[in-house]
Amino acid sequence: MSYFRRLYQDSPVPMYIYDNDSYEFLEVNDAALRQYGYSREKFLSLTAFDLRPKEEIPTFLDANRHVPLSFNDFGIWKHIDRSGRIFHVHIYAHLTIFNGRKAKSVLAANIDDKVKADAEISQKTAEIKEILENLRAIINTTSDKIWSMDTQRRIITANESFWTWLDACPKSIPAIPCSEFLPADWNDYFDMAFSGKTFSVIWQDTLSPKPLFAELSFNPIRNEKQEVTGISCFSRDITERQLYLKMIEKQNAKLREISWFQSHQVRGPLSNIMGLVDTFNHDDAADPNNAKIIEYLKQEALKFDGVIRKISEEAQPNR
Amino acid sequence: MSYFRRLYQDSPVPMYIYDNDSYEFLEVNDAALRQYGYSREKFLSLTAFDLRPKEEIPTFLDANRHVPLSFNDFGIWKHIDRSGRIFHVHIYAHLTIFNGRKAKSVLAANIDDKVKADAEISQKTAEIKEILENLRAIINTTSDKIWSMDTQRRIITANESFWTWLDACPKSIPAIPCSEFLPADWNDYFDMAFSGKTFSVIWQDTLSPKPLFAELSFNPIRNEKQEVTGISCFSRDITERQLYLKMIEKQNAKLREISWFQSHQVRGPLSNIMGLVDTFNHDDAADPNNAKIIEYLKQEALKFDGVIRKISEEAQPNR
Repeated sequence: MSYFRRLYQDSPVPMYIYDNDSYEFLEVNDAALRQYGYSREKFLSLTAFDLRPKEEIPTFLDANRHVPLSFNDFGIWKHIDRSGRIFHVHIYAHLTIFNGRKAKSVLAANIDDKVKADAEISQKTAEIKEILENLRAIINTTSDKIWSMDTQRRIITANESFWTWLDACPKSIPAIPCSEFLPADWNDYFDMAFSGKTFSVIWQDTLSPKPLFAELSFNPIRNEKQEVTGISCFSRDITERQLYLKMIEKQNAKLREISWFQSHQVRGPLSNIMGLVDTFNHDDAADPNNAKIIEYLKQEALKFDGVIRKISEEAQPNR
Repeated sequence: MSYFRRLYQDSPVPMYIYDNDSYEFLEVNDAALRQYGYSREKFLSLTAFDLRPKEEIPTFLDANRHVPLSFNDFGIWKHIDRSGRIFHVHIYAHLTIFNGRKAKSVLAANIDDKVKADAEISQKTAEIKEILENLRAIINTTSDKIWSMDTQRRIITANESFWTWLDACPKSIPAIPCSEFLPADWNDYFDMAFSGKTFSVIWQDTLSPKPLFAELSFNPIRNEKQEVTGISCFSRDITERQLYLKMIEKQNAKLREISWFQSHQVRGPLSNIMGLVDTFNHDDAADPNNAKIIEYLKQEALKFDGVIRKISEEAQPNR
């Protein structure tokens, strides 16, 4: 056997030659016999159709119409072995004359592992992408601002509300420390979160012309060693709620004040009345001063009535 | 030229043969000449060392010590072409006798595209995983419960706080509609969110033995056609805040009541005083009844003083 015939026989690349017209095999190397699971004798009794699942045969026949004289890349095909297992091969073929017969010489490299690995990677990537999209859908549908920062205080990731609020695009920001574009009074909160504390604060935007309150939550992000590698931050607009609370608190203080004031307002006129009663001359009922005292008492009682009417109006519920 | 020698020459797989001792090339096929960028004459004047970056040569020499008689898979190597471009090849080689010389016959399939594509996929996958981890870090560090649901009302994704709250593991839940394990009174909220509304409500857990309030936010998730394909939900514990608000509101009502009551409490004694003043005999100041009236007035004023002291105590701020 010639050197190159032996090389063909021993090549790790599965190769075979089949008759151009009958598709009968004329030659096969050991790698091809291993790939398809046949003895040399058996293989040489088969045709090129026997290496393919039935549904592939029309395409195979079609490809056979245009096989050039030099090796041509025919791409990826499904082949079938003796046991019926279907696998992927990369086919190179050319038209040739073998032992005086018009034939096709084929290289059928098994790439099934690669195809399967690629498919698996594609599927896993698709799965991860889906999980990612689902998470994004969650954080991007809320009007809360949500973001995370690394220890250098640069944005790691943020939701759409955050970028809309900053009127910035994600690409323009990441390299810049947050202190340069987030409210300056948040830096203390960041310090506290980076020191490992989880906490919430109610923050008023003092630079805003309208009242604007946010509930800010800060949460340390830790690695497996429990070291703080970043922080996650949530900002929720609570202006309406906060204004309501402040209004109620203010009303409360006002009502306490009214109540306190009332109790003092009535003390004065009553003291006057009591004083007048004490100055009455009991020993001499005919004392002309007594008539004056009674007159003053009447006036004081009327004034007192006026005070109480005013208090009643102030204390009116649902004013 | 023999048939198989021609097949070797024309094979799409780059192949060459080099002397076992001098590493000089003894044979090369056209695919190898194309792969390395040399003319046949030039290639045959080189040694196997010339196909490798210098730093790979020690490993190459090491591999040459154990080359078996049949083709062996030597795995992936870095080769270099005439222009200095480095690329990846999959090497199969065996020990042979060629033209009477001990030699090594080599198959060097170019797999650079695959290696690069794999590296790119790996990098992209790593990037996606990092983005995913960053998002997970955000939603898993908050104590807010965060989750999304599909139109069948099954959990799509949820954060750790959600699962901790339910005391469930993510695997046990997804197939079950949320209505079977989330509070029954949320179903109306889900309906509203699936109808396309974004809204928040304050919800009281009436089944909880302790007071428990949550702010629930519901946000529709839409596909590119703006159809609602799911909803995202946030639940934040606002018990403390809500109890404070309720306490303030209650105080407020109580203070209004006190104030109203006060104004009525003082009306009675004042009417008595005014009535007594009116019964006074102005025409005859010496009328002995007048002394009695003054005595009653004194008693009424003292009673009135008691009422006002009591009111003062009730109205005390910071009680």
